[in-house]
Amino acid sequence: MGRLNPHGYLRIAQAREFELSFAGGEINVAVAVANFGGEAAFVTKLPKNDLTVNAIRTLRGYGVDLTNLVYGGDRLGMYYVERGASQRPSKVIYDRKYSAISMAKREDFDWKKILDGASWFHFTGITPSLSDELPLICEDALKECKARGITVSCDLNYRKNLWSSERAGEVMEKLMPYVDVCLANEEDAEKVFGIKADNSDLLGGKLSKESYEIVAKKLADKFGFDKLAITLRGSLSASDNTWAGILYDGTKVYKSKEYKIHLVDRVGGGDSFGGGLVYALMSGYEPQKAIEFAVATSCLKQATEYDFSISSLDEVNKLVNGDGSGRVQR
Amino acid sequence: MGRLNPHGYLRIAQAREFELSFAGGEINVAVAVANFGGEAAFVTKLPKNDLTVNAIRTLRGYGVDLTNLVYGGDRLGMYYVERGASQRPSKVIYDRKYSAISMAKREDFDWKKILDGASWFHFTGITPSLSDELPLICEDALKECKARGITVSCDLNYRKNLWSSERAGEVMEKLMPYVDVCLANEEDAEKVFGIKADNSDLLGGKLSKESYEIVAKKLADKFGFDKLAITLRGSLSASDNTWAGILYDGTKVYKSKEYKIHLVDRVGGGDSFGGGLVYALMSGYEPQKAIEFAVATSCLKQATEYDFSISSLDEVNKLVNGDGSGRVQR
Amino acid sequence: MGRLNPHGYLRIAQAREFELSFAGGEINVAVAVANFGGEAAFVTKLPKNDLTVNAIRTLRGYGVDLTNLVYGGDRLGMYYVERGASQRPSKVIYDRKYSAISMAKREDFDWKKILDGASWFHFTGITPSLSDELPLICEDALKECKARGITVSCDLNYRKNLWSSERAGEVMEKLMPYVDVCLANEEDAEKVFGIKADNSDLLGGKLSKESYEIVAKKLADKFGFDKLAITLRGSLSASDNTWAGILYDGTKVYKSKEYKIHLVDRVGGGDSFGGGLVYALMSGYEPQKAIEFAVATSCLKQATEYDFSISSLDEVNKLVNGDGSGRVQR
Amino acid sequence: MGRLNPHGYLRIAQAREFELSFAGGEINVAVAVANFGGEAAFVTKLPKNDLTVNAIRTLRGYGVDLTNLVYGGDRLGMYYVERGASQRPSKVIYDRKYSAISMAKREDFDWKKILDGASWFHFTGITPSLSDELPLICEDALKECKARGITVSCDLNYRKNLWSSERAGEVMEKLMPYVDVCLANEEDAEKVFGIKADNSDLLGGKLSKESYEIVAKKLADKFGFDKLAITLRGSLSASDNTWAGILYDGTKVYKSKEYKIHLVDRVGGGDSFGGGLVYALMSGYEPQKAIEFAVATSCLKQATEYDFSISSLDEVNKLVNGDGSGRVQR
Amino acid sequence: MGRLNPHGYLRIAQAREFELSFAGGEINVAVAVANFGGEAAFVTKLPKNDLTVNAIRTLRGYGVDLTNLVYGGDRLGMYYVERGASQRPSKVIYDRKYSAISMAKREDFDWKKILDGASWFHFTGITPSLSDELPLICEDALKECKARGITVSCDLNYRKNLWSSERAGEVMEKLMPYVDVCLANEEDAEKVFGIKADNSDLLGGKLSKESYEIVAKKLADKFGFDKLAITLRGSLSASDNTWAGILYDGTKVYKSKEYKIHLVDRVGGGDSFGGGLVYALMSGYEPQKAIEFAVATSCLKQATEYDFSISSLDEVNKLVNGDGSGRVQR
Amino acid sequence: MGRLNPHGYLRIAQAREFELSFAGGEINVAVAVANFGGEAAFVTKLPKNDLTVNAIRTLRGYGVDLTNLVYGGDRLGMYYVERGASQRPSKVIYDRKYSAISMAKREDFDWKKILDGASWFHFTGITPSLSDELPLICEDALKECKARGITVSCDLNYRKNLWSSERAGEVMEKLMPYVDVCLANEEDAEKVFGIKADNSDLLGGKLSKESYEIVAKKLADKFGFDKLAITLRGSLSASDNTWAGILYDGTKVYKSKEYKIHLVDRVGGGDSFGGGLVYALMSGYEPQKAIEFAVATSCLKQATEYDFSISSLDEVNKLVNGDGSGRVQR
Repeated sequence: MGRLNPHGYLRIAQAREFELSFAGGEINVAVAVANFGGEAAFVTKLPKNDLTVNAIRTLRGYGVDLTNLVYGGDRLGMYYVERGASQRPSKVIYDRKYSAISMAKREDFDWKKILDGASWFHFTGITPSLSDELPLICEDALKECKARGITVSCDLNYRKNLWSSERAGEVMEKLMPYVDVCLANEEDAEKVFGIKADNSDLLGGKLSKESYEIVAKKLADKFGFDKLAITLRGSLSASDNTWAGILYDGTKVYKSKEYKIHLVDRVGGGDSFGGGLVYALMSGYEPQKAIEFAVATSCLKQATEYDFSISSLDEVNKLVNGDGSGRVQR
Repeated sequence: MGRLNPHGYLRIAQAREFELSFAGGEINVAVAVANFGGEAAFVTKLPKNDLTVNAIRTLRGYGVDLTNLVYGGDRLGMYYVERGASQRPSKVIYDRKYSAISMAKREDFDWKKILDGASWFHFTGITPSLSDELPLICEDALKECKARGITVSCDLNYRKNLWSSERAGEVMEKLMPYVDVCLANEEDAEKVFGIKADNSDLLGGKLSKESYEIVAKKLADKFGFDKLAITLRGSLSASDNTWAGILYDGTKVYKSKEYKIHLVDRVGGGDSFGGGLVYALMSGYEPQKAIEFAVATSCLKQATEYDFSISSLDEVNKLVNGDGSGRVQR
Repeated sequence: MGRLNPHGYLRIAQAREFELSFAGGEINVAVAVANFGGEAAFVTKLPKNDLTVNAIRTLRGYGVDLTNLVYGGDRLGMYYVERGASQRPSKVIYDRKYSAISMAKREDFDWKKILDGASWFHFTGITPSLSDELPLICEDALKECKARGITVSCDLNYRKNLWSSERAGEVMEKLMPYVDVCLANEEDAEKVFGIKADNSDLLGGKLSKESYEIVAKKLADKFGFDKLAITLRGSLSASDNTWAGILYDGTKVYKSKEYKIHLVDRVGGGDSFGGGLVYALMSGYEPQKAIEFAVATSCLKQATEYDFSISSLDEVNKLVNGDGSGRVQR
Repeated sequence: MGRLNPHGYLRIAQAREFELSFAGGEINVAVAVANFGGEAAFVTKLPKNDLTVNAIRTLRGYGVDLTNLVYGGDRLGMYYVERGASQRPSKVIYDRKYSAISMAKREDFDWKKILDGASWFHFTGITPSLSDELPLICEDALKECKARGITVSCDLNYRKNLWSSERAGEVMEKLMPYVDVCLANEEDAEKVFGIKADNSDLLGGKLSKESYEIVAKKLADKFGFDKLAITLRGSLSASDNTWAGILYDGTKVYKSKEYKIHLVDRVGGGDSFGGGLVYALMSGYEPQKAIEFAVATSCLKQATEYDFSISSLDEVNKLVNGDGSGRVQR
Repeated sequence: MGRLNPHGYLRIAQAREFELSFAGGEINVAVAVANFGGEAAFVTKLPKNDLTVNAIRTLRGYGVDLTNLVYGGDRLGMYYVERGASQRPSKVIYDRKYSAISMAKREDFDWKKILDGASWFHFTGITPSLSDELPLICEDALKECKARGITVSCDLNYRKNLWSSERAGEVMEKLMPYVDVCLANEEDAEKVFGIKADNSDLLGGKLSKESYEIVAKKLADKFGFDKLAITLRGSLSASDNTWAGILYDGTKVYKSKEYKIHLVDRVGGGDSFGGGLVYALMSGYEPQKAIEFAVATSCLKQATEYDFSISSLDEVNKLVNGDGSGRVQR
Repeated sequence: MGRLNPHGYLRIAQAREFELSFAGGEINVAVAVANFGGEAAFVTKLPKNDLTVNAIRTLRGYGVDLTNLVYGGDRLGMYYVERGASQRPSKVIYDRKYSAISMAKREDFDWKKILDGASWFHFTGITPSLSDELPLICEDALKECKARGITVSCDLNYRKNLWSSERAGEVMEKLMPYVDVCLANEEDAEKVFGIKADNSDLLGGKLSKESYEIVAKKLADKFGFDKLAITLRGSLSASDNTWAGILYDGTKVYKSKEYKIHLVDRVGGGDSFGGGLVYALMSGYEPQKAIEFAVATSCLKQATEYDFSISSLDEVNKLVNGDGSGRVQR
């Protein structure tokens, strides 16, 4: 998906110049993993035009394997985003309707070929929201994953502008049985499956970690996930957030440090958490280390422009190890 | 329609920044007329979002009456354009499929209300190309125009990326009987109605004015136009073009001066010709003056950034009167 | 008035590129009102040149009626502003001397025609500061307003670079009897009329709301205003301010919530408060709702680039209703 | 004087970003001379503000001695310029009325001190056009020059937006007796002193060198100049000009090569010719070499952004010696 | 190598912003080939830092295989380039001394591994010029090529700022026996091997194709090349060049069409010719088609920003087939 | 040294545009002093190219005397810096190896001539770190200073990327006996001379002023400095720092106010402290005033773009006198 944002704090309704980058729930994870040196491939459907050429050059540049891209359809999904500040929230216009992927057909994807040699499959709740066919396409992929013993992770990633809670719950409930590692943010569990955290006030920026432990357990138990991670964003304002995460492995809840972030670009924050977590689990990190790594990855991403996590392993580990002082490196 | 172009000579496939402006076959004409001080209103269907707010602020700024805009649909049509140079042509990616206007329904437009008080109606061949419903919508409008004695102008504006010659011919043939003033470029007559100019080599940049006189007469006679104008672009390269026009009033062909243009932005050139011609005819200019005015308007537009004609009446008249020296004004 | 500011945090003395926008105490209010969907017209005197054309396109784009603009004079007033940060304050260079408006004559304005159909008239203390003729022009307008029963609002808007406290007091004292709704910031009452708040330390960023209640009452009683509003800016630094307001209706003081703002662009903050308040009062909001609406409008403006308030009614109401979390909208 | 121009080919009426540089008939000459390694000082009156600080840093950076700048007044003169292309001319908005220099008084300048140690004094016809006092200030300086035996050069530099031909003729006629070296362009002699070249068509881009030889002789004889130089611009379009010059030393007319220039920025072209000529004459170049040097300097300036001549001595001499091939240097 | 150039026509000595891209005699060829869909790998030595990360993302994005990059050394070579115009030539500052590659050692490159599976090896005369070790490194590679039957192409690419004609001749003479396909521009044969074309005036922009046929034959016979291609640039000015090429296959000289190019960015023109030629010969094109393809590729590159050839096969073939009209594609 | 940084918060590894400014431990001090109106000259060795021309224009613009610059060598040292935010630190790539100054020879500098008329000499620990010759060059200068009674100040300025603590200690120990005024930051004393502050946690952002008093005394006593100043940066994050300083005059420790800075650009902060302190001591300020002035200077610098301190005396004194409210000046 293309991303167009005005410079600095200009709003979409007033801007005359936009910066083009690329983004998307799954590609953000793929780039994060590839950026850490992991192997990552990306599958979607894209139209044949020069915007796609631009996208491919960018993604290939990050080392993502694009061998199995499917070409066709009319348009590249786009989204416009403006950066919020203080009490003015960031704002997104989705222009992804009728995108190539949203009009894809089951026969477009040969999952046996695509998944050949893969050990991990990641998808988000955004994809099945885009059409009636996409839940089926996802299920095709997930069945093949199960057949091959591929670990499946899913970020619930609920977007109210894309589908209703009811439709999301209905669709995602069918896909959850295939999922080994589930990711969610502080809103998803409630919005998708109706599992609500007590004592939390999202608009007031206050989250109760204890409540989310209970949410985590309920959700994991409901679907039998191997692991479940929840990110906890305390939205103090559009300029400052708190950020933390918890990871439940079926027996214990591991809590990360909490960071207070002065935001550069919060969009893609959750996906970079996913990227960090997938990389960590693929690398066999212990749960506590995994959740700290994922939270640190996404903390740094939110101090970075655009959707992609581009901090190096060293940079993330430095933060994991406690140096968040921001002292200049020279 | 939104227009996004990279800075300078950067190509779409390599750019990371795009300039946003607004454009479209009809709005370009409306802005040109309003810019000269004429009254112009614009009707289309636009989705409700901040891109539309941006568009409205821009168009209203040029003095175009937007009272009858219809809101709804999913997306604002967009197009991406890169500036050519020398042997490298300018290139356009249309991302207008599924735009609000392309999915509009006949009942969206209350032509009695919209056309109330109007004396002139302009449309282009791009609009009916966008859907199967749009030819019907156009016909609704045209019928109401005829009923009210409103003058109708139409720019054939054939785009091979939007429809085939066959489909264009079939649709446009039905609409032509309502048209009083027809505009075409050096390709349209052949592409839409199969009326070809002899002795011209478009790719070689050579046009025979005599042949186009014959084309003009054939075309005007076929549909009984009151007036027919053809623009004649000699494409020497993507940097340098010749530019002229002819106007046939049923009895005589009036030929304009020919300009050699060092191009700044040729996109919108034909529309600004249309805007100049409509303004001239609305203002009662004699045919020779009208064609000179329209060609000068569009000559200056092609030395100006973006789609809109923003040269003042004085500036155009100065060129009409022979000063193309480009001497600095101070 | 044109506004030129360097990109980002660059200073005027070092910049080579400036962003052009438009601004001014009264136009900022007009744009704010028009942006909320209110009807707003703007009257001033502007020279005939392409900067004015640019200004007109911009203002008309925001829906401000410019029918009664007076053309003439030598120059468009300009101001240069650099964005402060931390302990470095924002800084303004006024280049408005000899502007068309500052050299306007009483006979330039036909107030009977201009005010025909109007129900509200707003002016600021900046206008009468610009020449010796302008207080007379203002008085002409105000007399006509009284004759027609038009509500008059005035933002004291004292600027030490434009006139002395003595001159300001003398001039404004004569105009106040015509004013129904008076607006002031935490400095104006003292600077213009010598009414000082106790227990407040402007440079230290500490304001006593109680003291300002007393100021409000004193000031309103002195001139018999129908309503008086005071904005209260706590300047913690050039990056962070507190922001609140009080509204006195002759019987009671209504206090707004206080926001802590991480500033994007504080210039125009007071004017957007004025715009919000005028819109609210024109719309018949209750006093508490009116002051909350005005403060929220201006809070969001200060998280937005340039002088104009461009947040929508929905966005302001969302903040009024308590959501200042800045959570991304998608 | 500050100069603000939009990026690329954007027009003033549509631009939102402007590039700031500095310019002016005399400072352009001073920078050209200093840039070649000559000693150059600049005298004017500037207001005390950060725009002036910016200007001073820029000018001092080019090595111009600013010791005798006079501070005071209200504003720095500004001009806005947009770049023309093809048939669309470059366009200038002067915003220099009421500038500090235009409101300067004779007593502001202590010419004995300013001219101490100087050997050459250069002024242009723009300066005396700015007020009624400035011709007197110029005359004060010129008298002191004569007293000290300082060579005086003057570029007639007629600007119709600043004064009428009548007033220009009247004022300049009084100053000419002090002038040793006179510079003019293809229009000045006629516009200021009514000496017209036959057989030339400025708007058509055709100049008769022979006619200008006669003009040169007439003009030089009239005032007894030691030397007189005329630049000859053939304005083919706003994109392409021819450029040449002639130098008359009282006995013979020396003609330069003629260049065909694809323009980058023609503004300042004449001043850079002046700078090149003053440097050449100060350096004792023979007339033929002097006129070639001056024309080559100004040819390169017109292929360079902004008003200043910044090509090095080597670069100019390379062109003088015949290499105008534009082959890349590496 | 990194490339930094100011925006538009700004000069290095005056610019404050630079665009970063990547370039180099060999990588330009690799990108051109990969861009056409060919397989291309690039070998050099680069330091470990974020500039290199940027470079790698860019090059990998173009599909160039970077598996065999060697890491180490202190710095990435950089060059600064400003765009010429009219009589002002483009200008380059090399800041490549002490670059990682220039300080590379023979043992850094394991040619057996690097060349495994390769069928074509391309290098330029720039590489051996950078140090005393690099000719030996080149020879190591070339010997391994010969042993494996890999076709070797070499672009003489003489740069006077990097080495003297004497040293170049001496070094290149040793490497030529390994070369199958030699490329040169209109200066190289003379500058490196003393083989001069008669009747040509490089600074005057006039080249004699006949003379270059003789040069081609002399040069090919001297070293027994399988094929020899010469590009012929007629430098009319820094804005306009003619461009053509000849290819000699030992028996016949094949001449391409000549293009008149209005330059966007001429740097990298010769390398894109090399890229086009290598791709054409690897693809088994007949000589006439090969030279036309290479010349068209490099013609389009010079109408494109930065060093890389990014026109598609279709775009190049369209030009080869005669459409240089630059008509907009829509 | 040239400085290249991406716009805003973009990282070096992702940016395509860089802003060029100039910087360096000693030039930053020279500019700060000259900016306050002091006389300052700068000595280094620079290569002859257009980057140097750009640098000279910039530095001369700030009023720094460059008469004694030495020309020669291959390259201008460059550094790339990206702005950190929140937990992501600013990051620097030095590309200064083999710079002209780092390869300078003792005979390049004629200290008798250079120091003629000077009263103060400032150098930093960066210079002797750049080569084995530079400590000797420094010593040459320092000896001449002593002979002439010139006050010597030195900022230890330890950079781990330039040399090891061991080497730094060894070299600096030899130079300290010549130093009258020593400057250090919270790390230098330990890194260079092994004198460590107790109870401070740099990464946690907590500094103990008391411990640094002891460090100051130990360090001053060890080398017999006349004065010793230490800056104390509390790195809360890359966005927010605390900033203070202490000055020890051999008898008493003077502590400045502590500022909490919301950072714009922290690079150059220490140098601007040096500039402020040198100016203050040269101006005969009392110790308390001197340390307050130096800390306020550097506080404002860190709210300003690029390395140079460009706040005026008035602006710094306003902050010294307690107004850090950032209230807009108008």
